[in-house]
Amino acid sequence: MKHSSDLEFWFDFSSTYAYFAARDVNALAERAGVTVTWRPFMLGAVFAVTGASGLSSTPLKKDYAMTDWRREARRRGETITFPKDHPITALAATRAFYAIEDHDPEAAVGFAQQVFAQYYRGKLDTNDPAAVAALAAHVGLSEGNVFDAMQTTRIKSRAKTICEEGIVRGVCGSPFFFFAGEPFWGWDRMPMLERWITEGGW
Amino acid sequence: MKHSSDLEFWFDFSSTYAYFAARDVNALAERAGVTVTWRPFMLGAVFAVTGASGLSSTPLKKDYAMTDWRREARRRGETITFPKDHPITALAATRAFYAIEDHDPEAAVGFAQQVFAQYYRGKLDTNDPAAVAALAAHVGLSEGNVFDAMQTTRIKSRAKTICEEGIVRGVCGSPFFFFAGEPFWGWDRMPMLERWITEGGW
Repeated sequence: MKHSSDLEFWFDFSSTYAYFAARDVNALAERAGVTVTWRPFMLGAVFAVTGASGLSSTPLKKDYAMTDWRREARRRGETITFPKDHPITALAATRAFYAIEDHDPEAAVGFAQQVFAQYYRGKLDTNDPAAVAALAAHVGLSEGNVFDAMQTTRIKSRAKTICEEGIVRGVCGSPFFFFAGEPFWGWDRMPMLERWITEGGW
Repeated sequence: MKHSSDLEFWFDFSSTYAYFAARDVNALAERAGVTVTWRPFMLGAVFAVTGASGLSSTPLKKDYAMTDWRREARRRGETITFPKDHPITALAATRAFYAIEDHDPEAAVGFAQQVFAQYYRGKLDTNDPAAVAALAAHVGLSEGNVFDAMQTTRIKSRAKTICEEGIVRGVCGSPFFFFAGEPFWGWDRMPMLERWITEGGW
């Protein structure tokens, strides 16, 4: 169990660029020799501050984003199947993450990877507590324990507090990274982020 | 004078990411063996469709963008000085571009590069017809001719029509590129754009 963390990976489970980032961030950190802390948050809370909307509900950007996501998936030799109601507000999945992280941060990362994988196969309602808790079994945890823990006031409040912390620290979109305080917004900033870490900034 | 064009570079003069793109796009095209058509447009017209706002007037994103722009400028060993009223609506500069392009497309690109260079030294009001026309002298053209031409109904209408064409074709931000119809949004998509051109897509 790692306590120190150099790199923070902030994301919303419904963010397709975060899905791509989630596939790559651990490998990036390993190459760069740093640890990563995963920080799911509610992008809707950021939108309330910025006044922005999600790509999927913005004219023009909506069509472009779909083209871009499918193009990047093809580059990876994959297909993405969006859930019918995409983007789903992933409050249950976010709370479940923090319920799991409370006891086992590495399992929480494995859980988050499962959430992304199932959601982008169109197979998971990330706001259904039972569906989300069921995924805990994939990382060797008790579904019942996670289901109970994610609904406690303490965990709900922790998820909310982290989200508020993100906004205070300037998280303005998803995915978002901090390395030793330096902010990087977007999946497409990952090459720059990696250079920044390995070169020690500039 | 080149008539054929494989790559289109759409941008608003007040877009800082377009400024970076403008520095790199011709070299990219040369490496990839394609021609470029520069297409200044009014990002405000896109915002009217998307409902988005400029980065500089969006809470959270505003601070991040300033950090990101200064970081990229440092990486290039440069500094950027934003005009006091940034972002200025660059209608005059956009019209002047099309007035020049009408007779000399290559001079128009040189003019656009001058506009970017002066604007990001904080030295140009891109919406002042006289100030903008004065830059025409830098690319060997008559200031008076450009000043007159940019205010004709034909050129004003041409600038407007191109902007409308961009929106119809899905231009949702700045910079924006098309290669043989394939859209790429953002300065940070330029590496992918270059791969796309050289690999013939995927």
